[in-house]
Amino acid sequence: MPATAVPASAPDPGTLRTRSWWGWGYADAHPDDAECVALGSLLPGTLARPLPIPRVADLAIDRPAVTPPPALAHLVTADPHARAAHAMGKAYRDVVRALRGRPGRLPDLVARPHGDRDVADLLDWAGEHGVAVIPFGGGSSVVGGVEYRGDAHRAVLSLDLTSMNRVLEIDTGSRSARIQAGALGPVLERQLRPHGLTLRHFPQSFEFSTLGGWLATRAGGHYATVHTHIDDFVQSLRVVAPAAAGASWRLPASGAGPSPDRLFLGSEGALGVITEAWMRVQERPRHKASTSVAFADFHRALDAVRALARSDLAPANCRLLDPGEAALSGASRDGSAVLVLGFESATAAVGDRLATALDLARAHGGRGTAPLPGSGAPVDAAVSAWRSAFLRMPYLRDGLARMGAVVETFETAATWDRIPALIDAVRSEVGAAALKATGHRATVNCRLTHVYPDGAAPYFTVAVPGRPGDEVEVWDDIKAAATEVLHRHRATVTHHHAVGRDHRPRYDLQRPEPFTLALRSAKQALDPHRILNPGVLLD
Amino acid sequence: MPATAVPASAPDPGTLRTRSWWGWGYADAHPDDAECVALGSLLPGTLARPLPIPRVADLAIDRPAVTPPPALAHLVTADPHARAAHAMGKAYRDVVRALRGRPGRLPDLVARPHGDRDVADLLDWAGEHGVAVIPFGGGSSVVGGVEYRGDAHRAVLSLDLTSMNRVLEIDTGSRSARIQAGALGPVLERQLRPHGLTLRHFPQSFEFSTLGGWLATRAGGHYATVHTHIDDFVQSLRVVAPAAAGASWRLPASGAGPSPDRLFLGSEGALGVITEAWMRVQERPRHKASTSVAFADFHRALDAVRALARSDLAPANCRLLDPGEAALSGASRDGSAVLVLGFESATAAVGDRLATALDLARAHGGRGTAPLPGSGAPVDAAVSAWRSAFLRMPYLRDGLARMGAVVETFETAATWDRIPALIDAVRSEVGAAALKATGHRATVNCRLTHVYPDGAAPYFTVAVPGRPGDEVEVWDDIKAAATEVLHRHRATVTHHHAVGRDHRPRYDLQRPEPFTLALRSAKQALDPHRILNPGVLLD
Repeated sequence: MPATAVPASAPDPGTLRTRSWWGWGYADAHPDDAECVALGSLLPGTLARPLPIPRVADLAIDRPAVTPPPALAHLVTADPHARAAHAMGKAYRDVVRALRGRPGRLPDLVARPHGDRDVADLLDWAGEHGVAVIPFGGGSSVVGGVEYRGDAHRAVLSLDLTSMNRVLEIDTGSRSARIQAGALGPVLERQLRPHGLTLRHFPQSFEFSTLGGWLATRAGGHYATVHTHIDDFVQSLRVVAPAAAGASWRLPASGAGPSPDRLFLGSEGALGVITEAWMRVQERPRHKASTSVAFADFHRALDAVRALARSDLAPANCRLLDPGEAALSGASRDGSAVLVLGFESATAAVGDRLATALDLARAHGGRGTAPLPGSGAPVDAAVSAWRSAFLRMPYLRDGLARMGAVVETFETAATWDRIPALIDAVRSEVGAAALKATGHRATVNCRLTHVYPDGAAPYFTVAVPGRPGDEVEVWDDIKAAATEVLHRHRATVTHHHAVGRDHRPRYDLQRPEPFTLALRSAKQALDPHRILNPGVLLD
Repeated sequence: MPATAVPASAPDPGTLRTRSWWGWGYADAHPDDAECVALGSLLPGTLARPLPIPRVADLAIDRPAVTPPPALAHLVTADPHARAAHAMGKAYRDVVRALRGRPGRLPDLVARPHGDRDVADLLDWAGEHGVAVIPFGGGSSVVGGVEYRGDAHRAVLSLDLTSMNRVLEIDTGSRSARIQAGALGPVLERQLRPHGLTLRHFPQSFEFSTLGGWLATRAGGHYATVHTHIDDFVQSLRVVAPAAAGASWRLPASGAGPSPDRLFLGSEGALGVITEAWMRVQERPRHKASTSVAFADFHRALDAVRALARSDLAPANCRLLDPGEAALSGASRDGSAVLVLGFESATAAVGDRLATALDLARAHGGRGTAPLPGSGAPVDAAVSAWRSAFLRMPYLRDGLARMGAVVETFETAATWDRIPALIDAVRSEVGAAALKATGHRATVNCRLTHVYPDGAAPYFTVAVPGRPGDEVEVWDDIKAAATEVLHRHRATVTHHHAVGRDHRPRYDLQRPEPFTLALRSAKQALDPHRILNPGVLLD
């Protein structure tokens, strides 16, 4: 059965809602002032009243330093709101910079190409005129991945790919789909659904990030075990770079030389613009079951998830919340750590796998009961609490930011031999750094988001009342302490949040020298004018 | 639990057997003359008597064009037998070139480094003196990966890594082991076994290939589904290149930039010498079950394996033999296609998975019965026949080569939408090319060695009486037809046999242009004197 072209369809209703230019997600989903005050009361020492929501009209915005040529003018805007909304990602430090009226350097222009030809033409023009080009998907970077820093370029163009958002072809026989890079999560899922297919890549940013962004940052997705990153679902990539453009062949696997795709996965827009990909999609799961398991002892819970990662059970969800994280999300109220376990399948009932996993967790001191087996199993209350909190969390972070709190996350991965000491060290040293920077005792919570036979990916949340007006400096001090601990424990600077500009110093030290030489020379060959996302990965 | 150093142990008994310099494996395992004649009788039109086993003493061997410096002399030999044994890999065309007394250009010297320092010193010396360096593991390449062609270098050094063969450290807690690249399969497994661990990478060349060779060629291993290539078991790589040396961090996963390891996996010695790796090892399986399923209709069998690849069952073995392949291996005598199915686990019984898989196969017209569930299940006769034939096949190929037959394999991978037409086209067009080249009707058999949700890896065997004295030319004609069919169907030039020199023309056309620029520039940066395995991957 050959691949079939997919006709264009009406835009997703979600795209009609207004995105916040300064904070997470939709503007109408932000906590209101009263909710902000309530949130602030959870962190004594924060402000009495929320900082006002910032307005683009209050920003001092220069005129663009360049004008696009007439042939490209229809793709480009200098609208102040568009420029402000493309100035930064959505890290805590981005949000507070906006709240304090000091966003990063605004791009001079925002371009919205409709296809590869447009991308190539824009790159050609930018190369000729010394204009930096920052590929931009959903703009949800939390590592300074979509902003410009410095002044080495004459002007900055934000290359917004979201007009390239179609599922172009579907090959049901090979369970694959050709998808444009600018499709946001819900936009591509909506186009796959009529075919009974799904990409099943559901990062926390699902609604506000694009396929291209996921690929360029090696995003962590839905699955807590086995195929944890988007990388494994890539069948072929199309890349447009200043010096060359082309696509890899559609292949289920290949041993012909180093993987061409793996060099562009994680290249963060520095080597080329990913414009589309053939992705390995899946049938929609018909069988699901999930439950939670409580552990009085966090270290025994670590042993349990390690055993689960080594079993053949392959849980889709296997997230371990430490007591603080469990309490914060409402998954536990008695000081227990909570393991959120979920199984799903398109082909077979998953009740047996869940029951076996539960047995295994109990053997390590876990307390939990299996829901009734079968696809209609009721969702465990702790699982439900965790899920709601998971999706709402970034909005709450912004509400707390408005109350002057410093609230942010960071994540890593390490082999099991280092995990217990690493988590302890992060708790104590990041806590100490926060205390030193603010005079307040910080909350430092941990969850394991992804687990492997040989290690795990801990994800930390820090919350502490800030120093009014110095929030960025306070966070930078805390983050410096965090990355120092990770580095000392040889834990990666990022498991799935990418390098961007924020992680550069430690990434440079982590990257092995032979690869540094290769990456530098590849950058020079593909981007000879050095216009592509300057400052990420390499200088 | 920290990683523990592993003390050195006595050499493996297997290493005391004599390797054949001209043919596959151990010299004492070759078919004798009588067996060769019996094999030849299966292919009417072959010779009446086998070609004699070639002798190194009969080769005209020049004196080495260079002399190593005194400081490196203890690592280097110019022994004619060593030079002859390192002149080529073990493809059919290598074997017949040896049989006809026309091996590829012999290396001037063979070096056996004992560690990274030795490797770096040898590369320094070679770079200064324009000596090509061909990294050599077990020498089992079937794609011209370990020979020198042309005359652009003053001399050729074969860099035999097999003295670097130790398991240096084991981290049981993280189920990982640090293994030197020159360890042959049995050598590393023997060192892992006392710890209850195994790498479980069992290519057909297992006894005669090394970890470094597997990594440098992205070898396909034991598993027919999910983690099919060695790539997925790499935690960290150490690389010594002329311009830089270093190791990636040990990480279960990371999203920090493009994967540094994936650029060197598959680099075939052209970018650097892989000297060691931390590998994800496994507990030894305690539960195994296997069976075979017969199919009257090969196309329905294709549907069955596709469904199996899309189930959650993850069979370790899921190899589909077409009727010819099944008959050849003794797995079937009635013209059926045969699916060899195997499950294994270190943690749980696998009988249920096997039974479910069997149900699925039966739903697609398969005929098979499950062995008794449990770890002590008897091995199905067809499975047993296939396994024996699998390991003996390369020896039989060489026996047939001595009878003047042309017998070789090639493999590929493609998405499911292309698989049926691809297999049909290979059968007819390769058969036609063989007929044209030899005047004989060829046997062209197919098996699927690895299966994926989005595609599969077909593996073809060709056997035809040759044209005495012109075996290389005949094979090259057949191979040209084969690669032309693969290319036209957009099937990869190799799924797990690597590119080497034989696959270069089609690989160059298959590789996307952005990656070509990156790879070329990486080569220039890492190997500025262009001494590393010249001619593989790039010129």
